[in-house]
Amino acid sequence: MSPESNYSQNLKVKTIDILSGKLIVVLNELDAKELGVLPLERVELTNPRNKKSVNAVLDITDTMIGENEIGIFKDVHKILSTKDGSIVQVRPSGKPRSIEFIKKKMDGYKLNQDQLKQIVNDIASNKLSEIEATAFIAAVYMKGFDLEETVFMTKALIENGKTLEIPNATVVDKHSIGGTNGRATMIIVPIIAAAGLAIPKTSSRSITSASGTADAMEVLANVSLSLNKIRQVVEKTGGCIAWGGAVELAPADDKIIKIEYPLSLDPEGQVIASVMAKKASVGAKFVVIDLPVGPFVKVHSRDSAEVMALKFIEVGKKLGIKVEVVITNGSEPSGRAFGPNLEAKYALEILEGKFFDNLGQKSVELAGALLELTGHVSKGKGFEKALNILESGEALAKMKEIIRAQGGKIVSSDQIGKAKFKKLFVSRHSGEISSINVGLLNKVARIAGAPSHKKAGLMLNVEQGSKISKNKVLFEIHAENKRKLDAAYDFAMRNQIVSLKRIILEKFS
Amino acid sequence: MSPESNYSQNLKVKTIDILSGKLIVVLNELDAKELGVLPLERVELTNPRNKKSVNAVLDITDTMIGENEIGIFKDVHKILSTKDGSIVQVRPSGKPRSIEFIKKKMDGYKLNQDQLKQIVNDIASNKLSEIEATAFIAAVYMKGFDLEETVFMTKALIENGKTLEIPNATVVDKHSIGGTNGRATMIIVPIIAAAGLAIPKTSSRSITSASGTADAMEVLANVSLSLNKIRQVVEKTGGCIAWGGAVELAPADDKIIKIEYPLSLDPEGQVIASVMAKKASVGAKFVVIDLPVGPFVKVHSRDSAEVMALKFIEVGKKLGIKVEVVITNGSEPSGRAFGPNLEAKYALEILEGKFFDNLGQKSVELAGALLELTGHVSKGKGFEKALNILESGEALAKMKEIIRAQGGKIVSSDQIGKAKFKKLFVSRHSGEISSINVGLLNKVARIAGAPSHKKAGLMLNVEQGSKISKNKVLFEIHAENKRKLDAAYDFAMRNQIVSLKRIILEKFS
Repeated sequence: MSPESNYSQNLKVKTIDILSGKLIVVLNELDAKELGVLPLERVELTNPRNKKSVNAVLDITDTMIGENEIGIFKDVHKILSTKDGSIVQVRPSGKPRSIEFIKKKMDGYKLNQDQLKQIVNDIASNKLSEIEATAFIAAVYMKGFDLEETVFMTKALIENGKTLEIPNATVVDKHSIGGTNGRATMIIVPIIAAAGLAIPKTSSRSITSASGTADAMEVLANVSLSLNKIRQVVEKTGGCIAWGGAVELAPADDKIIKIEYPLSLDPEGQVIASVMAKKASVGAKFVVIDLPVGPFVKVHSRDSAEVMALKFIEVGKKLGIKVEVVITNGSEPSGRAFGPNLEAKYALEILEGKFFDNLGQKSVELAGALLELTGHVSKGKGFEKALNILESGEALAKMKEIIRAQGGKIVSSDQIGKAKFKKLFVSRHSGEISSINVGLLNKVARIAGAPSHKKAGLMLNVEQGSKISKNKVLFEIHAENKRKLDAAYDFAMRNQIVSLKRIILEKFS
Repeated sequence: MSPESNYSQNLKVKTIDILSGKLIVVLNELDAKELGVLPLERVELTNPRNKKSVNAVLDITDTMIGENEIGIFKDVHKILSTKDGSIVQVRPSGKPRSIEFIKKKMDGYKLNQDQLKQIVNDIASNKLSEIEATAFIAAVYMKGFDLEETVFMTKALIENGKTLEIPNATVVDKHSIGGTNGRATMIIVPIIAAAGLAIPKTSSRSITSASGTADAMEVLANVSLSLNKIRQVVEKTGGCIAWGGAVELAPADDKIIKIEYPLSLDPEGQVIASVMAKKASVGAKFVVIDLPVGPFVKVHSRDSAEVMALKFIEVGKKLGIKVEVVITNGSEPSGRAFGPNLEAKYALEILEGKFFDNLGQKSVELAGALLELTGHVSKGKGFEKALNILESGEALAKMKEIIRAQGGKIVSSDQIGKAKFKKLFVSRHSGEISSINVGLLNKVARIAGAPSHKKAGLMLNVEQGSKISKNKVLFEIHAENKRKLDAAYDFAMRNQIVSLKRIILEKFS
């Protein structure tokens, strides 16, 4: 860090009402020159009233912001607790130390606990730019983490964030790697809570699928809960389903995930560290991990799933967490619904006992595995116990409690609203269904508007192995506007979503 | 690409007067939802009047920009030729095809010509985000380019940009890899032009050093020349020294360099492709590459310099360019000046015959190598010929011609302005100078304000091997304001810039 960085200016804040998803500030050209900083370089801002500080990326203007002023975007205001007219101290950020460690990893060296900690802290505090953080993730993808590095990374992620403590409770958690639809969590959490265990579940919003668990739960209740509110809800009801993005359990991890997404980079070591850090942060001592394997989900082969499973268990041991990984059949959709409202309704219907299908089966199996893992029931008795809680209506009653504790009002599947438009997609041939492409179904639901339009989505009417006749309805597309409905339908027409069994695979003549 | 991307909106432009160094547009939340795009995703903008289009990154606001409006930053205006109140068509950009190829490179596969072309085109047209482009550079750094890939990359960079043609001329060029100070180019170009060859030199501005050649030349003349203007200047005078950033010779390369910089990532294959693409783009058929080797420059060992040299020559062959690589002594500064004004003055003084030192020697040797390479003089006669052109005053006369052709007025070293403040840095001990850290000298000059403050910088008063007494002036720091002068002095005090020879290396007791 150069001595330059000791020099700071006091500038008057002018709000720029833009939500950019990044921490950006704007300086007048004159002030930027005086500070010796260029566009895209980073400056450190401090609010002298509360000593809160933040590193932000610099843009430069010569008209919009006057001399001795600083334009700050909304996201920066939030962190500093500043407002229009506040005074902030601004100085050039030094070059973060972790750059040296990133370079080491790129050159194939192993990183130690302190080095990974520094990288995680610099990512979380925005000291590393997107370019630098991407180079790190790319290095982890290409060079890998060994078991020790994975554990160090996990610990660094945990220590960097906040943690939840629920006193006098057996805290458990579940996680699904790359699950795509169905929302088993909304069935498992009430079963587990009804059984007397504590399950403070934080879930994500959709990135590539039609709905995340947080998106579906939001149809019923508020999911943007503070850590304090999560504790209250769990102490009262035993469970909650909150949006992980609203709490700062592992803030560096959220930034890493944003970087992994555009290239679908999921370095195995990082995925394990990321999942385990979040589980440890909520204080879970028993964790069941659902690892679906199939052609259209993240993990394609049993072999690689088994390798990953063993690593999860090892990392768990080092953190004092008992982990069970269950490899599940990911070749079929989990239930028929795609999209927030449709998935929320579907999960509630299972809790209401209206039907019991492969999603119900999976949820009860996973809940049963958790009950056995904690020793709450003896080996082999988990499924029966979980099924009993579901069938007796205890799980539904518990779900209603949780929804109300999270400030929700919708407690019955009948209350969930439907989309304005619907279009049926029918088969063009008759035959037996050999495969259903879950990725494409998600895509159709997204083009129809999900998850932004909560009511938009797709309902599947058939399953693998079904024998269908020509013109049979394969799925219904739901949308909030006509254009999106048509676009989704067109996309479905142009892609092979449902495949029929073929005897003649190729013809020569 | 999803069918979604066929949907576009016509929106009214509202200018946001921010220079962000990136292409950014701001949409109202309602319009963004309608288009189905999220913050940080990319949209394609088209100006319907001239069909110009550009890919930009999206920010979102709910107040600053109204419905049916789009806020666009200055950089976007420039490309589209739009203004406040214009109408632009906006649609979501599809996922670029090159992402798949980047992933392939990360997984260790070799890329073919078409794939590298696609990556280069998508970087140049801003279709790849910073994250995606960084992943590519990181992959090239970690997996390397073989010779064939280097050639493909070079060709892709050339084809993506514009090219210069100077009819009826022997076009030559020189390039220095990681040179740090001195500006040999400003001496070589007039020698070569005076000899009757054409040398359309494009140079860079400083990134980490106290001055780039473009910064120093700008003290004397205009360096932001269009391709057309470069052609005119060279046709008239035989040479020019322009800023490469102002012409679109290899626009993707400029973006790649911006990504390489923060992590000092210089994958060898990419460095070669980058240099050779720029040389080929100006139509050079003979190129001398100066590869300084030393502890404080980019290349540290003779061995790695030789490996790199052979690759340069091979790639040159495939492009029809005769390349000579000269490995030079990079362990000492090239001349005594650091900073734009000081370096420009120093180079002019050598051309004026006021002195002849190691910078003069290096420049004449390199010019001589170029003359021999083209066959302009016979082997072994290059140095003598070049020295003669310098000593006879022909090179100075040519430099004055070039300066005037580039719209400059300063043609004598006496006309160059000096900084307001100066501070002497003296030795604290007597002894013999064993090494001088060029990197730290650059740093001192930068803290003093160079290159933003053109007059700021540093003049070195000693050289390696000098025997000095205590309180001898080692260097002078020049600055435009007192604060920067003191900061630079403090930094120099706290660092070992000039090392004295030691007999006792360590003591035990």
